[in-house]
Amino acid sequence: MDQQINAFLENNRALHLKQMSDFLSIPSVSSDSLHKADVRKAAEWLAGDLREGRLENVQILETAGHPVVYADYLKAEGKPTVLCYGHYDVQPVDPVDQWKTDPFKPEIIDNIIYARGCSDDKGQVLMLAKAAESILAVKGELPVNIKFCFEGEEEIGSAHLDDFIDDHLELLKADVLLVSDTTMIGIDQPAVSYGLRGLCGLEVHLRGPKGDLHSGVYGGAVQNTLHAMVELLASLHDHSGKIAVEGFYDDVEELTAEEKTTCEKISDDDALKKELDVDTLWGEPGYSTIARIWARPTVELNGVFGGFQGEGLKTVIPSKATAKITCRLVPNQDPAMIAALLKKHLNAHLPAGVKMDIRLMDHAEPFVMPLDHPALKAAGAALKEAFHVNPVFSRQGGSVPIVNTFHDKLGLAPVLMGFGLATENFHAPNEHFHLVNFDRGLKALIDFLTFLPEQM
Amino acid sequence: MDQQINAFLENNRALHLKQMSDFLSIPSVSSDSLHKADVRKAAEWLAGDLREGRLENVQILETAGHPVVYADYLKAEGKPTVLCYGHYDVQPVDPVDQWKTDPFKPEIIDNIIYARGCSDDKGQVLMLAKAAESILAVKGELPVNIKFCFEGEEEIGSAHLDDFIDDHLELLKADVLLVSDTTMIGIDQPAVSYGLRGLCGLEVHLRGPKGDLHSGVYGGAVQNTLHAMVELLASLHDHSGKIAVEGFYDDVEELTAEEKTTCEKISDDDALKKELDVDTLWGEPGYSTIARIWARPTVELNGVFGGFQGEGLKTVIPSKATAKITCRLVPNQDPAMIAALLKKHLNAHLPAGVKMDIRLMDHAEPFVMPLDHPALKAAGAALKEAFHVNPVFSRQGGSVPIVNTFHDKLGLAPVLMGFGLATENFHAPNEHFHLVNFDRGLKALIDFLTFLPEQM
Repeated sequence: MDQQINAFLENNRALHLKQMSDFLSIPSVSSDSLHKADVRKAAEWLAGDLREGRLENVQILETAGHPVVYADYLKAEGKPTVLCYGHYDVQPVDPVDQWKTDPFKPEIIDNIIYARGCSDDKGQVLMLAKAAESILAVKGELPVNIKFCFEGEEEIGSAHLDDFIDDHLELLKADVLLVSDTTMIGIDQPAVSYGLRGLCGLEVHLRGPKGDLHSGVYGGAVQNTLHAMVELLASLHDHSGKIAVEGFYDDVEELTAEEKTTCEKISDDDALKKELDVDTLWGEPGYSTIARIWARPTVELNGVFGGFQGEGLKTVIPSKATAKITCRLVPNQDPAMIAALLKKHLNAHLPAGVKMDIRLMDHAEPFVMPLDHPALKAAGAALKEAFHVNPVFSRQGGSVPIVNTFHDKLGLAPVLMGFGLATENFHAPNEHFHLVNFDRGLKALIDFLTFLPEQM
Repeated sequence: MDQQINAFLENNRALHLKQMSDFLSIPSVSSDSLHKADVRKAAEWLAGDLREGRLENVQILETAGHPVVYADYLKAEGKPTVLCYGHYDVQPVDPVDQWKTDPFKPEIIDNIIYARGCSDDKGQVLMLAKAAESILAVKGELPVNIKFCFEGEEEIGSAHLDDFIDDHLELLKADVLLVSDTTMIGIDQPAVSYGLRGLCGLEVHLRGPKGDLHSGVYGGAVQNTLHAMVELLASLHDHSGKIAVEGFYDDVEELTAEEKTTCEKISDDDALKKELDVDTLWGEPGYSTIARIWARPTVELNGVFGGFQGEGLKTVIPSKATAKITCRLVPNQDPAMIAALLKKHLNAHLPAGVKMDIRLMDHAEPFVMPLDHPALKAAGAALKEAFHVNPVFSRQGGSVPIVNTFHDKLGLAPVLMGFGLATENFHAPNEHFHLVNFDRGLKALIDFLTFLPEQM
């Protein structure tokens, strides 16, 4: 790392933490209309900070909900443009009596800061800002072009981000999307994500007899809708846990040997068993646990219900049953094609005596960046420099809606390089953030911006 | 039928219907505390009628709820004793605006009487009373010993009947139980029931991971509790609908060739498909529809639930799932043994990665009377004489709790000979009762009391 910048960071650490504390003191709870003015106040604070830090074109851009804070610095001619995404809104603080500190009076204890939003995501938003501001302060210029897009509605589902992007396609145009809103593998083990699983969902409704029947009067004469449902749903997997839908795996891109090795290395089955309180893990045979999460598709029953749910017994043959199903998809599965395969399977396996209605629901494309993508190489090098260990190139088992949105609308290759920890209680009382990773992460972000143009 | 009695019935028909109307005018709704005094008024009216009809030892016996009306006539030395059961309480009348007549102002239109309780069961209670009273009036004595036990809580689950029987074992001692609270097969087709299916119930609780999980973060790594549940439940039947639990059918008494023929004759699959709005009926292969209902055991899923039930999708791996299961049992299956076989099956088929808790619930013994039981022969002859057709010897697909209670506590062989129709809207607005079956049924009851001592 550049010695001058390093010195700058050390000299300004107290200031940066003071700024973080000011930012975290604003209760920008996006879900609570009583905090509407606070959300805007946080946007204004952030805009002011970016302006002070010599970012340009700083604007608070309105949406139908909470505003987006935008800023840029576009003077690195011929160099790539990085769009930095983060969110300045936070989760509610209930149950507030379980907090050991005031959620909006940040306190630092043993180099850990406690406050709502410190880990998710205001602390990391500030790191993105400070990375650019520090280079500018020391060097007077940036090695890349940079744009900031900080939204105020991530915790309420980014309801207006789609429209915002559609309305600002030119403004947001970039080469790489940098997101600091994910977690590291462990306190000393950084990671950068290069793939996301996709999704397709469907709802299955079965109807047998026209109304619930008395099982004494009709039992044995007519299909029990729940029997049909469990038989139908059980047909989706074989006994080993493999998906039994014809063609389901056809387009799945296999892991490389290197990826397989990485997954095996990171899989800690004993720790996961303990965390989830299960005697055994379970899933598609032949793959390590992490491989199954990152790179193998699933068909999951998210909800199944029909018949009587009250106390005791009710001798009813239920008329209706419902199943909610989602698939996690991996490259190169196509959500629409997978939905069609599932539909075909369900129709082919439908037991006698019931009618079926299948409703297709949400879907998201899976995607993965090539591991030799310049942005990944820059991120890897930057993390290694800051943390003194090889980072893990990971994938996300879920889809990250905003990443999918930026990918689909702007064609942006995402670099998910976050510095929180899964154990830092975001979305829960006593959210905290390890400042050791504020320091190392800030350095990594600066190096990433520095290394990127060399790679691209 | 005895000519004198026949003449008596014709001469007294208007009086009997006037009495029925008076009885039905009392709103003896047992579930409604506002009608508590009316329930007692109905008990008193009935006691008064029995007294006027020369029955002896007429008493209103208290329970912890509504009282029981008791009466007897025990002068037929050496002859069998018949215990007549019925109930003088009725269902509520809501939604009252859907009644075309006042539910408690009986009206006769085209030889059909409209009023709450006319079919279920006050009309039939009155028939039992009038049968004995008419013989007494004409002959001055009864050919059998008779006891009446009319309860006021059938529509609220006969909550105090068990205790009442325990407290009055000697008083209620008899040879045969006569119940007029069931339905005929059709308006001109009488039936007498000689068997009931039994019941055993259990609740299955599965628990996978200690809490609901995000299917993006964990999907593929861990057993989905609902996958385990549908696989487990699907194992209870084979694809043909036969129960796949080892030993389940071992003790099942096969139908006789005669019974099979009867079942085939009565099975009207087209009518049932239409009634239930299904394209096909379904059940254990090799048996007619009626045979499956009357004489074959079932394992039914009454309720299955786990995971998300709201609108749309929620990508959750559920921690818990529950199934409510009841079996309908036939002679000579033992509920406790069947429950044990099910438990064994569930344990043997439990998928990996989940823990199971099985809770045993209610059970009832199945039973069947031999078709050559004198009471059945007397009932059959009486119905044939009154209706001019051969009655159907039927079974009940369900258990009838009060019949099980009398059978278990007093060892009584039950004769279920009712004169209502399934279409007469008991438990619904516009309950009615076809008076043609009041007339024929009353004659059949009189003949039953007359024929019984000749058979026994």
